[in-house]
Amino acid sequence: MKQDLDKLMAERGFDAITVSGTPKTSRDLFYMTGPIAVMRARLIEKRGKNPVLIVSGMERDEAARSGLEIRTYEDLDMMTIMREAKDPLEAGVAAFLHACDVFDIRGTIAFYGTGDIPHSHAFLGALESAGRFSVHVEPFKSIFSEARMTKDNDEIARIDSVNRGAQEVITAVRDFLSSCSEKGGKIVDRNGERVTIGRVKKMIQDETEARGMVLEEEVIFSQGRDSAVCHSRGDDAATLVPGKTIVFDYCPQEAGGGFFCDITRTWCLGHVPEAVMEIYNQVLEIHTKALDALEVGGLCSSYDKLTNEYFDAHGHPTPMKGTGKTEGYVHSLGHGFGLNVHERPAISMFSKTEEHLAPGHIFTIEPGLYYPDREIGVRLEDDIAIKEDGTIVNLTTISKDILVPLK
Amino acid sequence: MKQDLDKLMAERGFDAITVSGTPKTSRDLFYMTGPIAVMRARLIEKRGKNPVLIVSGMERDEAARSGLEIRTYEDLDMMTIMREAKDPLEAGVAAFLHACDVFDIRGTIAFYGTGDIPHSHAFLGALESAGRFSVHVEPFKSIFSEARMTKDNDEIARIDSVNRGAQEVITAVRDFLSSCSEKGGKIVDRNGERVTIGRVKKMIQDETEARGMVLEEEVIFSQGRDSAVCHSRGDDAATLVPGKTIVFDYCPQEAGGGFFCDITRTWCLGHVPEAVMEIYNQVLEIHTKALDALEVGGLCSSYDKLTNEYFDAHGHPTPMKGTGKTEGYVHSLGHGFGLNVHERPAISMFSKTEEHLAPGHIFTIEPGLYYPDREIGVRLEDDIAIKEDGTIVNLTTISKDILVPLK
Repeated sequence: MKQDLDKLMAERGFDAITVSGTPKTSRDLFYMTGPIAVMRARLIEKRGKNPVLIVSGMERDEAARSGLEIRTYEDLDMMTIMREAKDPLEAGVAAFLHACDVFDIRGTIAFYGTGDIPHSHAFLGALESAGRFSVHVEPFKSIFSEARMTKDNDEIARIDSVNRGAQEVITAVRDFLSSCSEKGGKIVDRNGERVTIGRVKKMIQDETEARGMVLEEEVIFSQGRDSAVCHSRGDDAATLVPGKTIVFDYCPQEAGGGFFCDITRTWCLGHVPEAVMEIYNQVLEIHTKALDALEVGGLCSSYDKLTNEYFDAHGHPTPMKGTGKTEGYVHSLGHGFGLNVHERPAISMFSKTEEHLAPGHIFTIEPGLYYPDREIGVRLEDDIAIKEDGTIVNLTTISKDILVPLK
Repeated sequence: MKQDLDKLMAERGFDAITVSGTPKTSRDLFYMTGPIAVMRARLIEKRGKNPVLIVSGMERDEAARSGLEIRTYEDLDMMTIMREAKDPLEAGVAAFLHACDVFDIRGTIAFYGTGDIPHSHAFLGALESAGRFSVHVEPFKSIFSEARMTKDNDEIARIDSVNRGAQEVITAVRDFLSSCSEKGGKIVDRNGERVTIGRVKKMIQDETEARGMVLEEEVIFSQGRDSAVCHSRGDDAATLVPGKTIVFDYCPQEAGGGFFCDITRTWCLGHVPEAVMEIYNQVLEIHTKALDALEVGGLCSSYDKLTNEYFDAHGHPTPMKGTGKTEGYVHSLGHGFGLNVHERPAISMFSKTEEHLAPGHIFTIEPGLYYPDREIGVRLEDDIAIKEDGTIVNLTTISKDILVPLK
């Protein structure tokens, strides 16, 4: 939780932290600022002090919406310093060192954020050479990923709210498809017009916006062979047909581009072929088994191991056996989410940041099986929250029925 | 231009380049892939060879839309290598080195892209330590910024097309406001309903989408004091009033999130106060003077110098005098744009990447004056293209009239 940041800084011996980027792309920055539309910002926080957000004077009003203390390049006189430098790199370094003087930053500083890779590497290298303080980076298990992994009940409530909105959208799409019928092997609406994937995606977009949510991650609505290539987004021009698996994987965000949710349903329109039903039933069974097994303190990887073992026992290729590459079970059981669609904890046998389930964790459970040559893809994904009191709640309660009957 | 990349690599002695991130956030990657919805990708290009795009097998279909040669972590056996590593950093390094072996990459490799700053710094540091090749970064004037700065006629045509769509949207908003009237000091629509900034922004969003464009950069539609803080986005809850400056700064992108355009108009509804008119006329005059002065070979900074001198002569604070911080002229005259809203060339006195105007450059000309205490902000921004034959074209031809008459 955010309130842990100071403690985490102390544990790691950081005298200060700094986060740069834009709130949209640098999610650690968003964590601190909330949804403000600034083009560039740097947050500096001395341990035990309130954070300060540095922006261009042009963006001072937008920055102030964060509720943080705002300083500008202009009022810190950073512009003058930057103008005297010989190149943009030297300018950035001189301006940053100047800000550190103003805020009396010394000791060990840890750097976070998202940015241009060559510039960041050169910038941090130059700061290391300057020797004014110790430059620290955390390439994994950062204090932010640590803090952000644990959501407080307010944050869980916000994610629950997005999740409920998302379930409404999924239900609306399902209801629309139920109002359709088959004609000449194609799905048509009440007016006899063919229903394309592009049209369904437009509906998803509209229904998302109508609920005040935003859809930044492109939705997956894929059919047949495409549904068996997990992240294939689907062919907008294709018309829906009966009896093919449709994978609908959907990650809207709350207004302002904050918390995500992440839900997947698999549908067949009109009828479910026997081969699909068999696979669907296995995915549903392990989904249920995994959910039942979840407990506070449980090793995150153990649930993915369970899933690998289950699928292996049923004759499917799996990552555990090194065989699940493009067929069978080809991903892990789930992942934490929050301000990113993917964050800690990883519910994966192969995760290197091994975690135990704990209060505040929010994550997906999403077993799936994929057979591109057989044109079958099935994935079922719910969002699970562990509340502060340790209660484990499945936030995603809409039907998992694969059959969407037609008119 | 993209075809220059190989020559630029040769000039700088790079044996290979690699770009990582997502096409959405890493614009150098987008430059190579176009609009594909993959969550993570790495492009590797050996000098004189075709680029290869490496993605997760789950994303192979999406990646293939780029038209590039696709390899997956799975088919390169990178997953096995990553699983054997002790932590995510070592995993990334081992997998990358393995890919370099597969593609026989050696010598000097230049790294590009956008990503997590701590991870990128640690990753490049580890590669430097590994000593298998020479790691090079270009923190500015990179081969990509060099190539991307020069648009070919096809790219200019695409930007022109977004620009025309944007002008239609601006005209539609202006027409809507012209259909409104004043009642009790507030702007009301034909039904007598008050017109808020939030409502106008919704209209802008809808009109943008209706033309197949996307609006990722939040629009600026700000009034009165807010219009005098350049990047203030405007208060959605505020009702429009007559006689206050409204700054409408708008950067939509072509479908798929590719090229931007960037246009600003300043309006007063119903009437224009004398003090505003005086400032507006000055901004318009220097806008015209700057446009007239543009010529191929011209020093980019010279046009900003001209503008600083003009505003200084008219008694305004300016950056040149070190006085234009929150009042007067507070930014530079313009900036290149393309896949980013801001890219080279910078039309700024203080730019450290000094350029001369050349065929293929596309940039804004946007003088402005800002007086927050007097609640006056004026900015006029057009998009200028220099075609391959050297012709200078102002793409933005809609009216700059400040007065929007009311019904």
